[in-house]
Amino acid sequence: MSDEPKSKNITWHHGDVTQADREKCHGHKAAVLWYTGLSGSGKSTLAQAVQTALFERDCETYVLDGDNVRHGLNNNLGFSPEDRTENIRRIGEVAKLFADAGIITSTAFISPYRADRDEARKISGDMFCEIWVDADLAICEERDTKGLYKKARAGEIPEFTGISAPYEEPKNAELVVNTGKDNLEECVKQVLAMLTEKGILS
Amino acid sequence: MSDEPKSKNITWHHGDVTQADREKCHGHKAAVLWYTGLSGSGKSTLAQAVQTALFERDCETYVLDGDNVRHGLNNNLGFSPEDRTENIRRIGEVAKLFADAGIITSTAFISPYRADRDEARKISGDMFCEIWVDADLAICEERDTKGLYKKARAGEIPEFTGISAPYEEPKNAELVVNTGKDNLEECVKQVLAMLTEKGILS
Repeated sequence: MSDEPKSKNITWHHGDVTQADREKCHGHKAAVLWYTGLSGSGKSTLAQAVQTALFERDCETYVLDGDNVRHGLNNNLGFSPEDRTENIRRIGEVAKLFADAGIITSTAFISPYRADRDEARKISGDMFCEIWVDADLAICEERDTKGLYKKARAGEIPEFTGISAPYEEPKNAELVVNTGKDNLEECVKQVLAMLTEKGILS
Repeated sequence: MSDEPKSKNITWHHGDVTQADREKCHGHKAAVLWYTGLSGSGKSTLAQAVQTALFERDCETYVLDGDNVRHGLNNNLGFSPEDRTENIRRIGEVAKLFADAGIITSTAFISPYRADRDEARKISGDMFCEIWVDADLAICEERDTKGLYKKARAGEIPEFTGISAPYEEPKNAELVVNTGKDNLEECVKQVLAMLTEKGILS
């Protein structure tokens, strides 16, 4: 900072706060945990539970999901192929901003297309961890937490992932969790173990 | 969290981390500091300097500015009236997400139109603090930190705020700082004083 008044033509000096500064202060590395999977697979639930576990360890963490993104940032997007791609792109860009702030950032969206997820991976680079929340369609449909499968089967929702639109399974996910087999606590442990293995948590 | 395996039809329980939880943990309230003013008025410089001061006080803080937003989230927007409005809308929505994470969030964009700023204010509600970085056009043009005024005067940049496009001055800004009169350190103090007065910092 300047230490005397300069009323004009100021070249202001400042040492910007870097991502590394923030990570040091937080005591952990930044990351983008990209949860992907069918509707009802438990992405958002798992992301929230991991967030709670991380918060209890004094980590800085945030979850982007339908609740806070669909009605805000992406409220002008529909469900056309272009809009779906733009939806995921914006989420990927915002996740990068949060990670730049030193935050362990999670995104919980079906994100059914490999190409869109790969774009999100490109945006965040090495910080990106793809977590495939794998659960059999039959299990997701039996849970039907939001009643969407019923509507999709009745033809009320066109292009519903898993029913009338494809889910492209990840080929190189950093982690695969199976919420049909393991309970929530176990799935959280698997995510935390990955974060430790990758040196995001110490 | 469930404490026993349930392989199907799981209704998972979790206590989500709230904004209040985060604020308590951070030791300060969340806020959106919306810096507005002419090109060269010092918005980004001031926002970065305030960020450094806040970081040194162990606050959680982040700055959204042209450097991290224009080439990422808003890289598909041009300079048409619609795109300018959408640019500010997205920034307003992302600022709200950061504030929801308990962060003192700053945005540093010219944001010349009152209607756009008012929309951003609506998005973040009570958390929104408009900071008018007021500096005479003559001073901004003399600084011409990015060489843009020279280009605008030469007609190379159409619709340049202050030259060939309007800047609508704030009517109800929470704070007005004058970077032509006060030096950076003084301006930072004024912002911090406002944060204390509003109970954002304790």
